Amino acid sequence: MKLGTVEADGTQRVAVALDDTRAVLLAPGTTVAGLIGDWAAARPAVELAAGAGAEEAVPVAGLSWLPPVPRPGKIICVALNNSANASRIMSGPAHPATFSKPASSLLGHGRPIRLKKEFGRVHPEPELAVVIGAAPANAGGAGIPLSQAMDHVFGYTIINDLTSPDMRTEDTFHYRAIHPAKDGGDGIEYVDTWVSYPGRYKGTDGFGPIGPWIVTADEIPDPHALTVTCVHQGRVITADSTANLTHKVAGVISFLSGYQTLEPGDIIAMGTALTASASGGSAVQNVNLTTLGGPIEVTISGIGTLSNPVEMP
Amino acid sequence: MKLGTVEADGTQRVAVALDDTRAVLLAPGTTVAGLIGDWAAARPAVELAAGAGAEEAVPVAGLSWLPPVPRPGKIICVALNNSANASRIMSGPAHPATFSKPASSLLGHGRPIRLKKEFGRVHPEPELAVVIGAAPANAGGAGIPLSQAMDHVFGYTIINDLTSPDMRTEDTFHYRAIHPAKDGGDGIEYVDTWVSYPGRYKGTDGFGPIGPWIVTADEIPDPHALTVTCVHQGRVITADSTANLTHKVAGVISFLSGYQTLEPGDIIAMGTALTASASGGSAVQNVNLTTLGGPIEVTISGIGTLSNPVEMP
Repeated sequence: MKLGTVEADGTQRVAVALDDTRAVLLAPGTTVAGLIGDWAAARPAVELAAGAGAEEAVPVAGLSWLPPVPRPGKIICVALNNSANASRIMSGPAHPATFSKPASSLLGHGRPIRLKKEFGRVHPEPELAVVIGAAPANAGGAGIPLSQAMDHVFGYTIINDLTSPDMRTEDTFHYRAIHPAKDGGDGIEYVDTWVSYPGRYKGTDGFGPIGPWIVTADEIPDPHALTVTCVHQGRVITADSTANLTHKVAGVISFLSGYQTLEPGDIIAMGTALTASASGGSAVQNVNLTTLGGPIEVTISGIGTLSNPVEMP
Repeated sequence: MKLGTVEADGTQRVAVALDDTRAVLLAPGTTVAGLIGDWAAARPAVELAAGAGAEEAVPVAGLSWLPPVPRPGKIICVALNNSANASRIMSGPAHPATFSKPASSLLGHGRPIRLKKEFGRVHPEPELAVVIGAAPANAGGAGIPLSQAMDHVFGYTIINDLTSPDMRTEDTFHYRAIHPAKDGGDGIEYVDTWVSYPGRYKGTDGFGPIGPWIVTADEIPDPHALTVTCVHQGRVITADSTANLTHKVAGVISFLSGYQTLEPGDIIAMGTALTASASGGSAVQNVNLTTLGGPIEVTISGIGTLSNPVEMP
C-alpha cells in the first residue's frame, strides 16, 4: 500500500495512492503517524476505505503533497554509503556514520525548493529512505538484533538529500582539540583535528524533499534490488541500484539502534546513489541547482517519483 | 516563571517551580509546548493556578522530570562558541556553525545517563540553552532581523551537551570529495577533504540532559551575564560566564533563521562553557563519565541546577 499526506482545504489528510496517477483521500483525523503506530490493526479498514473510494479517486498531480510523515522524530542519514565511494576513502569507519536533518528541512513532492545565493552550490543526492514502524510486541527500538531488524521497517520512501558543499567547507574547523594528557592526570594535550558541522549544509529549509508516499514493506521484498534514477531538467544524471549500498538496511538498523532508540515514523536515509548513467550522465556534484534551477526528480523502482521545482535566487 | 514537564501517574504534567525546591503541578492536558504556542494569553491563568496551588506544592526532588519540552522540533547546537576556543582555531567560519541532536537523545533532570563501553570516552559540556517562542504577530521564524531576534526567545534552560570524542574520531572520514571541474563542464576533480559526522558522538540516547525547567525570558534580562558551573562528584570542574560566548543569542537567532526556520519549542544550545575554576578545576575533557561515573551537575545563575546520575557500563 502507498500512504502519503496531503493538504486539502487547510487540513492534513492521508492519501492512499492506487497507482502512480490516482489517490483516495481518507477521512480527516487519520494521520500516517497514527497508522504507523497501529498498522496491523488499522490496515484492514484503510484497505476497505481505499477500495470503496476508488471511484472518487483524484489525480496525484492535483494534490498538495506534504512529507509522508510530516514531523518525524528524527531523520538519520547514512554518509558515504555506496560502493562507488570506497576507492575515494583514505580513512574512515567500517560501520555506518550518520548525521541528522531536522523535520523543518523536509519538503513534500511537488513543492518548490527555494534557494538563496548564500547557500552556495547545492546539489541533489537521490536516496532510498527507510520508515521505521512500531516495534514488534516485547521489543523496543533499542538494541535491535540483526535477525529482527527488518521487523522494524514500516516501509520505504524517496528522499533527495540536498547538500551544499560550499556551506560544508565554510563550516569546517581545523583546530587543536583538547584531550586528556596520556599520563591519566588532570593535564591536557592538544590534538590537531578537522571537524565539520552539518547544521546548515544538510539541514537548511527545503534540503529534504521526501515522498510522494511510503510504500509498505510487504510490497518491497528486497530493498537492495531497486533502481535509483535522478533526472535533472529531463536529463538522466544518475542510474544506480540499491544493490550498491555498502551498509544494508538490516545492518544499519541494528547498528544504529545500539546508540539511538528508533521510534515509529523515524526516517533513515540510506545514502546517495552515485553511478552516472551509461548514456553519459553527470556526477550529481555537477548539478548546481542554485545556478541551474530545476526541476529535479528522483525515481525508485517500486516506489514512485519525487519531483520538485526549484526557485533560484 | 519556571515551567517544566514531569511524569506523574503515567501522564505528563506541567510543573511550575515556585523556587529551587518546590513546584506546583498544573491540571493534566496542559503542555509546555502548548503554553509556548500561546503564552501571552495563557500566562495569567498559569500564574493564578500556581498561586492557588502554592499550599499543595510538592518537593522538586521528589518529581520525575522530563525534558521541559519533551519533543522539540529541533535541537540546534552551536559549536566552538567560547572565547577560550579562539586561540586553538587554525581555520573556521566567522559565523555560528551548528549540528543538531535528535529529541530521542534528551533526558530529564535526575534521570540516569546510561553509558555503554562502545560509547568510548564521554565528557560533559555545560551550556545555556535558548527556547524559541511563538513568533510575534506578522513575523515568522525565518529571516529574523537582528533587532527583533530577542522577541523570539521564550526562555532559557540548561543543557549538558554530552560528547564522545572517541566516536567523533571513529566517524571522521578522510576522503577525496568529488567537485565539478574548474572548467565548468561535466568533468569532475577530487579534493582532499576531512568530514566528521555527529550522529553518534552527539546524538546517542542520554547525550542530552536538559532542564530541570525553562525560565521565561522576562526573568533573564541579560543572557550574557550568567555564571555557568559544572560540578562532577562534588568537585567544581568549570566556572565560566555566558559573557564569554563568542556569538551572542540575538546574533545566533538572526543568523540561523536565514537558513532554518525557527519554530516554537525549538532549542538552541549556545556552546560549551570552558573556563576551569580558579580553584584548580579540570578540563571537561578530563571528566570521562564512562569510567568515572556521576553525578554530573550543571548550574546556571538565575535558572537552576541540572543534575544526573550516571550508570557505568
